[in-house]
Amino acid sequence: MTILTLNCGSSSVKYQLYDWDNKVILAAGIVERVTQPGSVIEHRSTGKEEITREHACPTHKEAIQLILETLVDSEYGALSSIDEIRAVGHRVVHGGEKFARSVVVDGHVLDSFKAIQDLAPLHNPANILGITSAQEVMPNIPHCAIMDTAWHQTMPKTSYMYALPYKWYEDHAVRRYGFHGTSFLYCAKRAAVLLGKDPFETNVIIAHIGNGSSINAVKNGVSVDTSMGLTPLEGLIMGTRSGDIDPAIPFFMMKKLGLSPDEMETILNKKSGVLGITEKYVDRRDIEMAAADGDKKAQLSIDMESYRLKKYVGAYAAALGRVDALVFTAGVGERGPQVRERVCKEMEHLGIKVDMNKNTASMTRYAETELSTPDSPVKVFVIPTDEELVMTEDTYALLEGTYKDHTEYTYYFQNPNYVNKSRQEALKKDLAKRPGLDKILVYPPKK
Amino acid sequence: MTILTLNCGSSSVKYQLYDWDNKVILAAGIVERVTQPGSVIEHRSTGKEEITREHACPTHKEAIQLILETLVDSEYGALSSIDEIRAVGHRVVHGGEKFARSVVVDGHVLDSFKAIQDLAPLHNPANILGITSAQEVMPNIPHCAIMDTAWHQTMPKTSYMYALPYKWYEDHAVRRYGFHGTSFLYCAKRAAVLLGKDPFETNVIIAHIGNGSSINAVKNGVSVDTSMGLTPLEGLIMGTRSGDIDPAIPFFMMKKLGLSPDEMETILNKKSGVLGITEKYVDRRDIEMAAADGDKKAQLSIDMESYRLKKYVGAYAAALGRVDALVFTAGVGERGPQVRERVCKEMEHLGIKVDMNKNTASMTRYAETELSTPDSPVKVFVIPTDEELVMTEDTYALLEGTYKDHTEYTYYFQNPNYVNKSRQEALKKDLAKRPGLDKILVYPPKK
Repeated sequence: MTILTLNCGSSSVKYQLYDWDNKVILAAGIVERVTQPGSVIEHRSTGKEEITREHACPTHKEAIQLILETLVDSEYGALSSIDEIRAVGHRVVHGGEKFARSVVVDGHVLDSFKAIQDLAPLHNPANILGITSAQEVMPNIPHCAIMDTAWHQTMPKTSYMYALPYKWYEDHAVRRYGFHGTSFLYCAKRAAVLLGKDPFETNVIIAHIGNGSSINAVKNGVSVDTSMGLTPLEGLIMGTRSGDIDPAIPFFMMKKLGLSPDEMETILNKKSGVLGITEKYVDRRDIEMAAADGDKKAQLSIDMESYRLKKYVGAYAAALGRVDALVFTAGVGERGPQVRERVCKEMEHLGIKVDMNKNTASMTRYAETELSTPDSPVKVFVIPTDEELVMTEDTYALLEGTYKDHTEYTYYFQNPNYVNKSRQEALKKDLAKRPGLDKILVYPPKK
Repeated sequence: MTILTLNCGSSSVKYQLYDWDNKVILAAGIVERVTQPGSVIEHRSTGKEEITREHACPTHKEAIQLILETLVDSEYGALSSIDEIRAVGHRVVHGGEKFARSVVVDGHVLDSFKAIQDLAPLHNPANILGITSAQEVMPNIPHCAIMDTAWHQTMPKTSYMYALPYKWYEDHAVRRYGFHGTSFLYCAKRAAVLLGKDPFETNVIIAHIGNGSSINAVKNGVSVDTSMGLTPLEGLIMGTRSGDIDPAIPFFMMKKLGLSPDEMETILNKKSGVLGITEKYVDRRDIEMAAADGDKKAQLSIDMESYRLKKYVGAYAAALGRVDALVFTAGVGERGPQVRERVCKEMEHLGIKVDMNKNTASMTRYAETELSTPDSPVKVFVIPTDEELVMTEDTYALLEGTYKDHTEYTYYFQNPNYVNKSRQEALKKDLAKRPGLDKILVYPPKK
């Protein structure tokens, strides 16, 4: 069974085509500059070379049509007919309080998304547009919605309420929602596999560190706290988002600079974070190079980002009562040994002991590694995330009628013998390139 | 030598008169409704009965004059002449980046306070008014300024910078300052005494929990991080202040409710915190009673306040690398066993083991108690704070020329034999009232 996943942003559409029967990726790519001049698709079918093609996409509908045409292209495609696609899984950033699990999209579901659009004005309108456009182009198959917030609906009120007028929650749904749920679900389930434990007896802290970053406290297999809040602005220091600040600062600076609320909100979302500190960089690799060259603001940015993370790890250790594993994932989590080192050093009193040589060796997106020493009470893993796989399996299971939600469903990737076949070629290359990487692989088992 | 300390708020003046030679409080009180109709002084000289007198105070100057008149009142006063007052110590909330220590106030110092008035618009203007009024009324003695922020000037840049445009720091001094410094200084020094350690080899976490609350990470005897920020709004959940929230929430709610930035700032400062959650209460004793009566929002408020605190304790444990003691202080910290219990339970993995019977027994403002079990790696103390004593001694030492700052000065209360004589009578009453309290006193040593 072939399943397409779509992730529609305001000016981009990411996609992946997955062959569920053989558990391999058939094709993946992105259309960029959607609704703008010079729209372009970058596409790669497995085993074929990557292609880039310009094609006008005045709306998301043309972008999705372009993806489908490319998928059946006789030379670069992966399918002989679009009819082979049995279902589409759509990423939806904000599901509000109504959705604690993935769902098949119908009119009611779409109405619910529209009703909470203003909770995520930067993301949800594009997500909704993606669904309706895809429904027009592929009207005869089910479309499913996989929400970033659904995983976090297990949080207790103590975690999700703010110390703000209670009526704001009752009348306007002001509460912590949390995001990156699909990534956290994957990592929490995989961590339980690596620990050899029942997922619902497993406590883990997961740091998803990328351009957007958040961290999750998972107790007995369910989310109990996370750093992002009503919106993805709260919490960790991110690429361009401030994360936690004194809530009085925007008011102070609006007065100082004569800025409108909208202008201030844009600065907090687009001009802050590591970009704000360094005044130049968003990409952490650029920052590490600049810091190595003596750029003090770049060094400060690394120190601040790591320190904020370290404090959240401590906070969630306190919240959980017992921690089985600390997991790093996403771009910086998977390939940022400097940030990981700063988070994990001098944490022995919290039971976290990392072998810094292992940490340095862990530089791959294609395999899971263990960084902790054999006697560390808390295991430390790097688990490359796989949100598309969760989206694909949720869609598959919704079709099969076997899915309720993650507390009553066992994912294929929870099988102790699970291997991500699509990552094996790339892993071989990394193993050849990175000395010591072979010694820290925790899964698949070393042969 | 007799020293007067003054704490001028926008509509109140608190004072204490201290006999430095005999180390006893001579008198203390407060003038309320200053600049408003019905100004009233509540005054008590040690060993005499408390009095309350109405007296018009259209400005802070009349309030200070009223205090001085009361201090020399033949029946209720404590002095035969105002000339016995040798110096005045003034509390100043915000000292900005310029002051890392207490100072004698001169024209330059006053100008510096005026220059940063807008960093603390709710507090500093009244503090400045208090100093200038007192100088008018007592022109021939030195006036000293003791700043809440000075203690925190040892924080590293990693702690005090925000992930905001760097220019905001350079041009507008936007950074974390932290408050309650005088209280933290006192508790950090006293904790080292109770631990029998060199203060500059001592790591402690201090939770100052009152109507305003903040928490402090102290490493090797100096402040390295704290929860309040540019203003006292950030961090813990307080009486009426929200503490940490998603910075996007105020913008979302301004749009929803059509509020101006000023109106929103007022709500975050005056209508949030435990008042926002419970919709009724600020006083934690009222909240505990309501929760016991089944009020769910009151229970949520206790849970949320404690949970936020617990997370900060974990965060600072991570930041410090090693924790010698956790200290509770101020109103709720000294007399809120329910909040302390929730913070400390299930923290054994962080080395914090509290005997809950000891915790319940610790209900006094007049003595230091130990809550931890004998085998707890982290000691847990309740240390009633004494900000006036620090203000008095800073003022005294500035006069004597023996003070530089807290890293090069040993306070009288750091003497292992120090006993707060003014608290002994009240302690006796609490000992008679509270079973078990006698068994948990750590200082003065049990006889």
